[in-house]
Amino acid sequence: MRNLIEKVFTPVFDNPLLKELHDGTVVELPSGRIAVTTDSYVVRPLFFPGGDIGTLAVNGTVNDLAMCGAKPLYLTAGFILEEGLEIETLQRIVQSMKRAAEAAGVAIITGDTKVVERGKGDGIYINTAGVGIAGEGVNISPRRAQAGDAVILSGDIGRHGIAVMSAREGLNFETQIISDCAPLAQPVLALIDAGLDIHCLRDLTRGGLAAALVEISESAKAGCEIRESEIPVMDEVAAACEIMGFDPLYIANEGRFIAFLPEMQASHAVEILKNFPITQNAALIGRMVEDEDSTVRMITAYGSSRIIDMLSGEQLPRIC
Amino acid sequence: MRNLIEKVFTPVFDNPLLKELHDGTVVELPSGRIAVTTDSYVVRPLFFPGGDIGTLAVNGTVNDLAMCGAKPLYLTAGFILEEGLEIETLQRIVQSMKRAAEAAGVAIITGDTKVVERGKGDGIYINTAGVGIAGEGVNISPRRAQAGDAVILSGDIGRHGIAVMSAREGLNFETQIISDCAPLAQPVLALIDAGLDIHCLRDLTRGGLAAALVEISESAKAGCEIRESEIPVMDEVAAACEIMGFDPLYIANEGRFIAFLPEMQASHAVEILKNFPITQNAALIGRMVEDEDSTVRMITAYGSSRIIDMLSGEQLPRIC
Repeated sequence: MRNLIEKVFTPVFDNPLLKELHDGTVVELPSGRIAVTTDSYVVRPLFFPGGDIGTLAVNGTVNDLAMCGAKPLYLTAGFILEEGLEIETLQRIVQSMKRAAEAAGVAIITGDTKVVERGKGDGIYINTAGVGIAGEGVNISPRRAQAGDAVILSGDIGRHGIAVMSAREGLNFETQIISDCAPLAQPVLALIDAGLDIHCLRDLTRGGLAAALVEISESAKAGCEIRESEIPVMDEVAAACEIMGFDPLYIANEGRFIAFLPEMQASHAVEILKNFPITQNAALIGRMVEDEDSTVRMITAYGSSRIIDMLSGEQLPRIC
Repeated sequence: MRNLIEKVFTPVFDNPLLKELHDGTVVELPSGRIAVTTDSYVVRPLFFPGGDIGTLAVNGTVNDLAMCGAKPLYLTAGFILEEGLEIETLQRIVQSMKRAAEAAGVAIITGDTKVVERGKGDGIYINTAGVGIAGEGVNISPRRAQAGDAVILSGDIGRHGIAVMSAREGLNFETQIISDCAPLAQPVLALIDAGLDIHCLRDLTRGGLAAALVEISESAKAGCEIRESEIPVMDEVAAACEIMGFDPLYIANEGRFIAFLPEMQASHAVEILKNFPITQNAALIGRMVEDEDSTVRMITAYGSSRIIDMLSGEQLPRIC
């Protein structure tokens, strides 16, 4: 175990804090409010177009911090390895984590590794927890979403889920669909720095856009109306969904979010988002309305109205 | 999944922060230095005399923070559940976590749950990450241990490993051996509050007392001499070790630590520790000496000298 840490992890996460080989790490923080989050990653397969479990483990947790309106600073990494995992595979994943952490501007400051017997895992599971700094006066919560809010979507949906699914099933589409997995803190912090009154943010992971809208509408005790025509979906993703019988609204993304803010600030927000490559296709897709039943309604491309509900099971398990 | 969160987790971790059902949690922290740590728990079996995977997941991470000299405040919890795990089992574990968190004075503020298929896990794996506050001027690090330091052991060793092993193998000893799993922050903070110059702390988990001494001696570039006669081992544990062919020095504990501090402060430290039930058998077991080769030497009960080395494999896998 100690060999593994010294040979695989320490050289990659070349970090004076990690080199202490201690049980934890002490870091300086500016005073104030910190955001804390955690996620375990069990994606299958480990590698997919546009990323791997390591990229996900960094970006997923960075994005959860961003969704609290916080600047991500530090990550922890806990590995559960199945006996028989190839060292080369582990090294590749750890390298991905290093690159993703650099890109997101966070440091992986402490970690842990456990090994379980063959047949008691699935190669590798990774947990990351994140610590970030929440700015003064930032108050982002599903309960703050309210009737009159605009709903802004940061980009096209469905790519991550389809990328993982096609890697899992060995499907080949004419154009390879690449996961949208990416860090979102920069564009989110730009919205906050611009002084916009963001009520709520949510990244569109498990359950996709649909689950995010339903959950937030319930917490907010308000309804939501979105327009299908405003929701960007790549042609290739739409085609793949049609073939596989999926609905892009329910597919997990790893680099997409929705923002709720007063309608009069919506165009300013979209303008800001368009400055960042990862959010260049941001669009106003709908608004929150008075509705005690918290219904989420979509005006379809044909002009009819469809109620968006939570799926009872997971459309795509082990997608993150 | 959402059902699971609302039915199993939220009622137990009755916490206004968790109720937000958001991606992360924002908390107020006093300014200054924070300690961050993480551990995954894969213990087998899930339940053992004196605790279960939930107790471990809380105390293990609380103790890692304490070993940084920090006051533990917040934990995150990430669950990886294997399909088929009984809800009652999960509820029992979650209740244990709640009790352990209350006893340790920490709040579980955010969490995550993933489900993997049958045969891709082992019932449940838990990751916890912890955040604590490190006091001004506290500087605890393996590198600070030095020749002239006293080595203090907080209590008898070997119970946790033997408790887990006997549960795993279905062994029955005349007296049931109960794990020492417990939170250690209170006695550790009492040492710090007394103004003692603690150079290094280490809890005696994987690899036991032996691994802790070897690792710290290497980091400190100093040798270590301990006296076997001063190391408390319960008779039942000694007997079980003899039967199973284990050496108590290498067995994992979950409520024991060693402290390194200047020799003249040693008796004061032991006196303080004796005030707490969990550290009432604390003892001065040896000292650090000049030695470039970082040898750890034990004077045996027969007066001979034995070199303590790291085991190359794990004596007891999946003990935490």
